[in-house]
Amino acid sequence: MIKFSGYVTNYTRLKSKIILKIIDTTGEVPGIVQVVVDGRLPNCSGQWISVWNCKPVFDQKECIREYTCESDNLRCETSTVDQPFQLCAIKCKSTLGTEIVHRYHSLKLLKNQLKFRAVGRVLHRLRCSLVQSGFVEIQTPKIMGYGSEGGSQVFCLNYFGRRAYLAQSPQLYKQQAVISGLSRVFETNYVYRAELSRTNRHLTQAYCLDCQMITNGMSGEQGLVYIQTTACNLIGVAHEEITGVKPIFKTISYEKAVVLCNEKFELLQGEDLEKQHIQHLINQLSCDYLVVDYFPVCLRPFYILRSNSEWTYGFDLFNKNMELISGGQREYRHERLILNLIQKSIDPESVSPYLQAFKNSTIPHGGFSIGFARLMMGLCEVDNIRDIVLFPRDPDLLKP
Amino acid sequence: MIKFSGYVTNYTRLKSKIILKIIDTTGEVPGIVQVVVDGRLPNCSGQWISVWNCKPVFDQKECIREYTCESDNLRCETSTVDQPFQLCAIKCKSTLGTEIVHRYHSLKLLKNQLKFRAVGRVLHRLRCSLVQSGFVEIQTPKIMGYGSEGGSQVFCLNYFGRRAYLAQSPQLYKQQAVISGLSRVFETNYVYRAELSRTNRHLTQAYCLDCQMITNGMSGEQGLVYIQTTACNLIGVAHEEITGVKPIFKTISYEKAVVLCNEKFELLQGEDLEKQHIQHLINQLSCDYLVVDYFPVCLRPFYILRSNSEWTYGFDLFNKNMELISGGQREYRHERLILNLIQKSIDPESVSPYLQAFKNSTIPHGGFSIGFARLMMGLCEVDNIRDIVLFPRDPDLLKP
Repeated sequence: MIKFSGYVTNYTRLKSKIILKIIDTTGEVPGIVQVVVDGRLPNCSGQWISVWNCKPVFDQKECIREYTCESDNLRCETSTVDQPFQLCAIKCKSTLGTEIVHRYHSLKLLKNQLKFRAVGRVLHRLRCSLVQSGFVEIQTPKIMGYGSEGGSQVFCLNYFGRRAYLAQSPQLYKQQAVISGLSRVFETNYVYRAELSRTNRHLTQAYCLDCQMITNGMSGEQGLVYIQTTACNLIGVAHEEITGVKPIFKTISYEKAVVLCNEKFELLQGEDLEKQHIQHLINQLSCDYLVVDYFPVCLRPFYILRSNSEWTYGFDLFNKNMELISGGQREYRHERLILNLIQKSIDPESVSPYLQAFKNSTIPHGGFSIGFARLMMGLCEVDNIRDIVLFPRDPDLLKP
Repeated sequence: MIKFSGYVTNYTRLKSKIILKIIDTTGEVPGIVQVVVDGRLPNCSGQWISVWNCKPVFDQKECIREYTCESDNLRCETSTVDQPFQLCAIKCKSTLGTEIVHRYHSLKLLKNQLKFRAVGRVLHRLRCSLVQSGFVEIQTPKIMGYGSEGGSQVFCLNYFGRRAYLAQSPQLYKQQAVISGLSRVFETNYVYRAELSRTNRHLTQAYCLDCQMITNGMSGEQGLVYIQTTACNLIGVAHEEITGVKPIFKTISYEKAVVLCNEKFELLQGEDLEKQHIQHLINQLSCDYLVVDYFPVCLRPFYILRSNSEWTYGFDLFNKNMELISGGQREYRHERLILNLIQKSIDPESVSPYLQAFKNSTIPHGGFSIGFARLMMGLCEVDNIRDIVLFPRDPDLLKP
């Protein structure tokens, strides 16, 4: 007695038979099954249906498991009411905007089921990989008494009459955790950015995987390689989970990257790499993911460790379209942090909560942050970050 | 050549030898090792030290691994500067307040290393257990266009000039995800409560593990048992991870619990269970964790499913001191939600965003929320929730 239970994504009448496509959820991973019902049946697309006594059809097409059953072995578990949009059209006519507003309905689409289950699966694989490598998961506060990086693009909060801020980054907390003996830590949570960006890749509330690790006993270069390798291993785990194949990584220094870009574009040393430059580099180097490292001092913040007066141990990782990761070795010496701040014309007083943890004895360390939704965008091949986030937030989108 | 690396938690001089206790972090789990150094050595307590060419001592005491080494096989990786408090005293003199302010230092204490590594380990075990049971991890927004449960104790936010709120609960989002085909979901993240509670068990930013699952095809009673069993299994996983033994669970209905409480206290049917009542019940029933279910309608919110006009399919789970879990079957029928609201004298308009998802076809479901820090408080035997949270937030504590 084969039994299925799930939403009907397609309903077709064919002579005396009804062909239903059901997102079956009786197993652990939802699969689409086709059930050919013998008898009359009202249109039940978008409805949750239970169907039992199904017999497999052995002459199967299209990789969809096919079954037959009698119409009295079928029960509609939900009542038919007006739906925001039809799920049964061959090509669903919903727009992304409609899908987000009616997530409780659009999630019934098979493409969305598969996408959001993949999000959960990849996140779990990444965490497992980190735990196996001795990383300790921590939680850091999102309500802060000061803006994380002294920036202006921060959400303000009324905290019992006091002014508070939403965390733009867990960076200082990660650093405190590793320099005080947790050695290797990670966190998965939101970062909050009050940026008026209306692009396909920016959200005001972005889920990130942040890692930080000590690089004690390593040279600056060795430490950078260790941090980059950890980051690439994670991207590899995610990529293989979705595509089944190992991705190709290439690494190039910023200096060489600029030289390579000048084959096609005019780019000066010290200028930032734009989308078209990244695409050119990835094409030239024939890779899935590109690491650019040793960024110049002028392009990195004060807390990135410098390899000399000109270059830093900072890196970014890109896929075809976007920056997925930013990271590097951190400056851990209090007096050097002060010098870096002065050189960048930042008043050390304005970041004093950051500096305090480094007044005491500290050890070399570094880390990175993965923009998790951006990673999933690439892996699930969607063009808009709002299509891979269940309930996205941008300057206009505050509901549902 | 045995090598260790980590912070010195204790430094003792004994004739011509120095005895160091080091939180070794070269392995995956930190262990305390005792290294007896032959030769001179300045006080290096609280400093990160690397030590190599260590020889094991075979006559060992106190379960602490003991080694010897020469003083020139030792390097202090950090510089000696003023420390907020000494780590080397046999009984550390720091208070909890001092420890929180100087977390980058207090985390070096072995007790804290073990505690915060246990937090990460338990969280990972809980997620693995859920993934194995087919639960899908989701992320729901923490910035909301309306207060989650229509409550007043909610933090307000300036969202590009508009008023927004921090989520008090992911409940509606969890419900939307399961009723639209994800079937079983969980989320781990903060809930934010603007409560002026200054107790040992309340924080304004509390990390929770929220689960939600469909109970389709089950009776109300079966569904409740299924939800409770899922919750108890998770508590069991956490308990065993820390203590190594399976805990004892008992379940009692609210009605019977009140009868039992009246052996010692005066408690009327319909009154809430207080701390002393829970302690009495747990003592009488000889269990580690107590589930109280079938709470009366007057003690549960409008969205909990009712078994009849008087009782609900709602439950709480307690350990010796505290409520760790609250959960139950949810009301999923739009017209019943309206009736429940009217009966509780709540204007349905005030929770209209909640109601919208149930206007369409929905299916039976339920879930629960575990207060993760409270669970860890019990397992790590600490009295104050601030002692198990790296950077806690309460009405007074907004830094670090």
